[in-house]
Amino acid sequence: MKRGEIVSPTIAYETWGTLSSDASNCIFIFTGLSPSAHASSSKEDPSTGWWEDMVGPNKPIDTNEFFVICMNSLGSCFGSTGPISVNPDTNAPYRLSFPVLSVEDIANAASELLNVLGIDFLHTVIGPSMGGMSALSFCLLHPLKVKRLISISSAARSSPFSIALRSLQREIIRNDPNWEEGNYDLDGNGPSNGMRLARKLGMITYRSASEWSNRFGRERTQDKDPKGGAFGIDFEIESYLESHANKFIGAFDPNCYLYLSRAMDLFDASDPDGNLENSLKKLDLDQVLVIGVKTDLLFPISQQEELALALEKYVEDVRLVQLDSIQGHDSFLVDMDRFRPVVSSFI
Amino acid sequence: MKRGEIVSPTIAYETWGTLSSDASNCIFIFTGLSPSAHASSSKEDPSTGWWEDMVGPNKPIDTNEFFVICMNSLGSCFGSTGPISVNPDTNAPYRLSFPVLSVEDIANAASELLNVLGIDFLHTVIGPSMGGMSALSFCLLHPLKVKRLISISSAARSSPFSIALRSLQREIIRNDPNWEEGNYDLDGNGPSNGMRLARKLGMITYRSASEWSNRFGRERTQDKDPKGGAFGIDFEIESYLESHANKFIGAFDPNCYLYLSRAMDLFDASDPDGNLENSLKKLDLDQVLVIGVKTDLLFPISQQEELALALEKYVEDVRLVQLDSIQGHDSFLVDMDRFRPVVSSFI
Repeated sequence: MKRGEIVSPTIAYETWGTLSSDASNCIFIFTGLSPSAHASSSKEDPSTGWWEDMVGPNKPIDTNEFFVICMNSLGSCFGSTGPISVNPDTNAPYRLSFPVLSVEDIANAASELLNVLGIDFLHTVIGPSMGGMSALSFCLLHPLKVKRLISISSAARSSPFSIALRSLQREIIRNDPNWEEGNYDLDGNGPSNGMRLARKLGMITYRSASEWSNRFGRERTQDKDPKGGAFGIDFEIESYLESHANKFIGAFDPNCYLYLSRAMDLFDASDPDGNLENSLKKLDLDQVLVIGVKTDLLFPISQQEELALALEKYVEDVRLVQLDSIQGHDSFLVDMDRFRPVVSSFI
Repeated sequence: MKRGEIVSPTIAYETWGTLSSDASNCIFIFTGLSPSAHASSSKEDPSTGWWEDMVGPNKPIDTNEFFVICMNSLGSCFGSTGPISVNPDTNAPYRLSFPVLSVEDIANAASELLNVLGIDFLHTVIGPSMGGMSALSFCLLHPLKVKRLISISSAARSSPFSIALRSLQREIIRNDPNWEEGNYDLDGNGPSNGMRLARKLGMITYRSASEWSNRFGRERTQDKDPKGGAFGIDFEIESYLESHANKFIGAFDPNCYLYLSRAMDLFDASDPDGNLENSLKKLDLDQVLVIGVKTDLLFPISQQEELALALEKYVEDVRLVQLDSIQGHDSFLVDMDRFRPVVSSFI
């Protein structure tokens, strides 16, 4: 993987609400690995956003009151520059010639975007999952630009358990012969089989065992897959994974997925000796809200506690909220009745 | 998958110790999915067994005192009849023409083996993981043959979470082009890539996040994989998974793996309405020990509690032991200092 730099990247973003005259009411949203900048519907794009219940008029991130920006991460495939973008030096897509991507690059892209928009200071920066890493990274790299952080189901560094799972997802994609070492036809199906299997693994770890026991139990499906043959789909849970994983195919570029997934592994907010408290010295935050979910396998409560505890050394007001949602890591997208009041009362 | 029957299957087993004159000192061990009958070393085979620390002279399953039998499960590939065995009707390996395999078939194979050995009654039946399912099934199908059961990190029925993981492992194997719909060359490599990836997923879920944080943290490996290219091995945890998964290739037949994995999904000791207590009425046990591990993702403590609670209705003496081992589902193979005294004191 090449180290290098991308000159003048394009950064896709959407905004909601109106910037106040003193530009003091801006909330910036970093996304998880796969969403676009379309966090909520708008006049320009009335389709439902990925965080529709959280962002909008009279919602917890209230667009009547705040000017809200959501950015498509650098390296993603929804308008921002990434591995599918055309390299101006070669007139061909970057693919694997795209340089190593880090969470810090995503945070710096946000800072550049704010410069272009003429916004010097954020009211709050917020992000779930990888977005929480990007948000923390932004606070560390640009401490004078923000006083309040909301980190949701995220971590100060990736654990070896989550690295193992993401590494396996990447290997499954790379093992699909149609990946072609990253040179698949961008208009064709590409490594759709590998993407489907990697997505299933994602879905298994994004949710929780107790949710599935409640939802599916040991129900058998009517929806047998004749192609599956002897070991095909039999249980409802298998049918559910199959249909949802199929929806993901084509919706996300495989090379972009590989780069963003790897960026999460590489993220470590601690100093070179692995000391987290030391590195957080750079922060200039007044208030932090750390939200975690007790059934989250990927970003467990222990990582929320680690982050909150380290923050307490340098931040006056750190609140750690541990939610009882049973939807695991995905709860921030699903269990809105629990998340809305927590975010709302902090903002 | 065909329903059918196997006539006169071969059942591989090993024994240790001496049967008492009244044949009252026999302990029967059912294995997890992948081990052979070689639970412990012996004069005939001095190589280390898969449960060497548990079975032997003066060990918890004391071969000075007991006559111990360990059986290779029906459907496996270490001597018992399974998908790699030659079908006498066709003179070719069964492969996918092998009939649907169930945990009950494994339990019944054990009963047939005992008939051949002239043993009417077992002192104790014991099994970890899938072996615990086989052991419970044996007690349900042959209630007059046993009074004591030890179930280790097992369950009365597979949860949808564990079904999802095993289903994905099977799909990864079946998606390897070298699986060839089950018709790979039995002397060649077969779907070694699929087996390697499925094994990695197994290893990730057999252990626990906390163990890996302790063992590997975020250490980088010196042992880079040049073949991995841009997204190759970087962290120690990735290197560990790669080297261990490679050892599994060739050690277990892929079709046998598919059949045994599916048998675990299908296992459900409850009655057709999903009522577990009702179906346990058939038991005639005096004592049961249920051991679970708090960090087990595949067979969580909630399933140990479910089993113990249902057993209490019909069994006088049910003991539930919840161990603090950090090695997850694999703890019964690794954390012997915690497991030995528990098994020893019960036997």
